[in-house]
Amino acid sequence: MVLLSGGLDSYTAAAIARRDGFSLYTLSIRYGQRHVRELAAARALAELRDAGRHLELDLDLSQIGGSALTSDIPVPKDRAIDSTQIPVTYVPARNTIFLSLALAWAEVIGADDIFIGVNALDYSGYPDCRPEFIASFAETARLGTREGVEGRPFTVHAPLQHMTKADIAREAARLELDSGLSWSCYDPQPGGRACGTCDSCRLRQKGFAEAGLTDRVAYAGG
Amino acid sequence: MVLLSGGLDSYTAAAIARRDGFSLYTLSIRYGQRHVRELAAARALAELRDAGRHLELDLDLSQIGGSALTSDIPVPKDRAIDSTQIPVTYVPARNTIFLSLALAWAEVIGADDIFIGVNALDYSGYPDCRPEFIASFAETARLGTREGVEGRPFTVHAPLQHMTKADIAREAARLELDSGLSWSCYDPQPGGRACGTCDSCRLRQKGFAEAGLTDRVAYAGG
Repeated sequence: MVLLSGGLDSYTAAAIARRDGFSLYTLSIRYGQRHVRELAAARALAELRDAGRHLELDLDLSQIGGSALTSDIPVPKDRAIDSTQIPVTYVPARNTIFLSLALAWAEVIGADDIFIGVNALDYSGYPDCRPEFIASFAETARLGTREGVEGRPFTVHAPLQHMTKADIAREAARLELDSGLSWSCYDPQPGGRACGTCDSCRLRQKGFAEAGLTDRVAYAGG
Repeated sequence: MVLLSGGLDSYTAAAIARRDGFSLYTLSIRYGQRHVRELAAARALAELRDAGRHLELDLDLSQIGGSALTSDIPVPKDRAIDSTQIPVTYVPARNTIFLSLALAWAEVIGADDIFIGVNALDYSGYPDCRPEFIASFAETARLGTREGVEGRPFTVHAPLQHMTKADIAREAARLELDSGLSWSCYDPQPGGRACGTCDSCRLRQKGFAEAGLTDRVAYAGG
């Protein structure tokens, strides 16, 4: 069971799961994100990696709002990406929600392993990407499900947890992933180009640059 | 922030929150439940209790299935309600999902307190109604949110946690709640009547009987 947003991180996490012998079930959430473009990437990637099933769940978080990704708050541009502030692109409780949906589906299909592509080094300061959060969620999952009660707890895998973006770019290259099929940008531009200036683009570009690798995504003005 | 399903338990939890001086924000989830009738009850109850806002979120869990409440698995009738088996009406990870949605909205509106009407005595053996699950979720919420990181952890209140159904019926009477406005039945019958034979009806009827109180919901054949 892989949470597949369509970004480079979740694509790499899915490829790692596949390499390690897991059959893939991939889950994307159409949550009212302004970069709904990522869902098409996720569908393509799921197909490419032979997912047993790819499920796209609708959950309109814009009814809740509170984030630049789900409301009309502007996406910040050219922000210092090493800031320790939690940015306005933080979607309240997003990973808690997404992991709980993955948990539900995992329980139904009898999967014991959930993969999520969070990483806590080159990330945007989102609290729900930290290792202590992931560990706590796994414990909540054990206590709150039939499988957990029956002694078959879930394992939440976060294989990118301790990687930098450069490490992830290198890992993706090692796995022969086409970075051009993934989509990270929060603010898609005309012509299917990434903006190059949102936090997500800047972290990604920095990672590829540090790894000395070419990002095959097309950037506006690039 | 109260998770309000429209049943007697969440109605009582909401009334307790109101009595204790909280302003109410009430959240219902249209999750593909076969007893969607409960949502109308929740709307009426939210209005009656002066909720600042009542939000009804759509999340189609029938895409995930795995429960008699969200798929075409039949709702069991006249089952032994003191069974320790987890029944087929268990919706995988439902409370984890619902609490995470409540958490998201609570964070957006700046609420620190989340109320849920779970109880672990006369319940249906659902793992996600147990105190240890609720405590673990609160810890996950602290770690996975901006509010938690900034030192303002959420409190998850489960005021019915240690009550029997009879206790809840008594508490509802003390709070002068009209039980006829709530809806617990999993299998609504023609004429807006409750079936009287699903687990939820039977637990509820047993509670009212033990408390010596009259349930104002109309039951089929009653």
